[in-house]
Amino acid sequence: MSHAFDDAITLTPAGEHAFTGATHPAYANMVGPFGGITSAILLQAALSHPARLGAPIALTVNFAGPIADGPFTVQARPVRTNRSTQHWQIDLAQDGIVGATATAVFAERRPTWSAPEAQPPAGLPSPEAVTAAEPPRALPWVRCYDMRFIDGALPDPFDGIEQPHATTRVWLRDEPPRPLDFTSLAAVCDAFFPRVFSRRRQFAPAGTVTMTCFFHADAALLAAQGTRHVLGVARGLNYRHGYFDQSAEIWGEGGQLLASSHQMVYFRD
Amino acid sequence: MSHAFDDAITLTPAGEHAFTGATHPAYANMVGPFGGITSAILLQAALSHPARLGAPIALTVNFAGPIADGPFTVQARPVRTNRSTQHWQIDLAQDGIVGATATAVFAERRPTWSAPEAQPPAGLPSPEAVTAAEPPRALPWVRCYDMRFIDGALPDPFDGIEQPHATTRVWLRDEPPRPLDFTSLAAVCDAFFPRVFSRRRQFAPAGTVTMTCFFHADAALLAAQGTRHVLGVARGLNYRHGYFDQSAEIWGEGGQLLASSHQMVYFRD
Repeated sequence: MSHAFDDAITLTPAGEHAFTGATHPAYANMVGPFGGITSAILLQAALSHPARLGAPIALTVNFAGPIADGPFTVQARPVRTNRSTQHWQIDLAQDGIVGATATAVFAERRPTWSAPEAQPPAGLPSPEAVTAAEPPRALPWVRCYDMRFIDGALPDPFDGIEQPHATTRVWLRDEPPRPLDFTSLAAVCDAFFPRVFSRRRQFAPAGTVTMTCFFHADAALLAAQGTRHVLGVARGLNYRHGYFDQSAEIWGEGGQLLASSHQMVYFRD
Repeated sequence: MSHAFDDAITLTPAGEHAFTGATHPAYANMVGPFGGITSAILLQAALSHPARLGAPIALTVNFAGPIADGPFTVQARPVRTNRSTQHWQIDLAQDGIVGATATAVFAERRPTWSAPEAQPPAGLPSPEAVTAAEPPRALPWVRCYDMRFIDGALPDPFDGIEQPHATTRVWLRDEPPRPLDFTSLAAVCDAFFPRVFSRRRQFAPAGTVTMTCFFHADAALLAAQGTRHVLGVARGLNYRHGYFDQSAEIWGEGGQLLASSHQMVYFRD
């Protein structure tokens, strides 16, 4: 039996730079699909394009409007291919209306001096020592992840007591387990609920308008990770007049930073 | 006399979504133009488009290949306009070859609960108490800024002594002074030299492949800033096999976060 994630990102070639696909009920959000699965689909279009060079270094996804349940078309064009890098413009449309746009940078990496600068939090309990969260009923996609919150879980109840910060630390992996790859790593980058929920402990309409992922993982780090939990750390930066930015790091085996991601999120009072 | 920055971002309409412009010698980098001025030009195309709605919330610029001294064409298309947001695809080409691509999100903001989460560093000397840096001769664009490094200046000499981190804190403004606007704020987001220079104190080829800016500033914050120095804080996150990510915050009057930015940078040993 195939994994729902693989079903959800399945694309069928439909022309030189075109693919067709369809939303998957397992990855539904409150309205339309989970942004992470949309990001994975857009990346998958470039990954499966016959002209693709190397592996993803960066992906920016802009959530332009609601995506309806049903079929969609993805266009992925390599707009410039250099000796070791390749630049992509990608978009997803339904009935000719753009629902999401993306750009991606791919590269063939070569070994160089490598070192971390940001550090993963130390002294955390192992995934086995933390209880898996009960997924909220209204969000089907959350059931596609095993999430074990060390701190900063979704407030329950939303009591309106403003907090000084909105940091979340969570162990997470696909449920059922699936070996980590670039598409699932892109999806995980969007698996953190809007920071304003944590900060204000108040529910309000909110949604990501744009997300950027930087990939540090290469094939070797992905293989070392396999199906194990990654550690996600997310925080807010600044909330102002309807928009805030939040950043996340995805840490893997051996304290390696697999990806960093940054998003701008719309919110209402 | 006009400011070199305004000259550099001047675009002439050349069709429904097209503009023409030319590189400006004042903003030359070692090879091609300073990435910040390219970012400002791409943003300026959307800002000056007759269909533009609201003000920029986010901008991602992908540096696809070298830009030659001389004329260029910019295409800026509003691919989706909603009630209060608008999504843009933008690119810059020379002789039909794409040199840079961008996406931008614009929005009409409404007042909401607002609060910082990241904080500016405290206890820093004022710009007047810090000596302006002597610009390196090989980088004309640096002379377009008054940069006053509190710490983390460009290593001099490059002695190859590896540092534990690559944080820079610098007061900066346009030179000569120019009131801050969205285009100059986008440019400032790229005014931090590659973190690997600081970290390794070793010169090597390096260049930004993609940069994302999130704008917290609105017209009111820009007006409050005027021509005064902003405080830039930049740091590295992770260096691995030819690429590293660096983040920066641009702080303004009253400790307001004007913009955050994140970039992925290519480097060689």
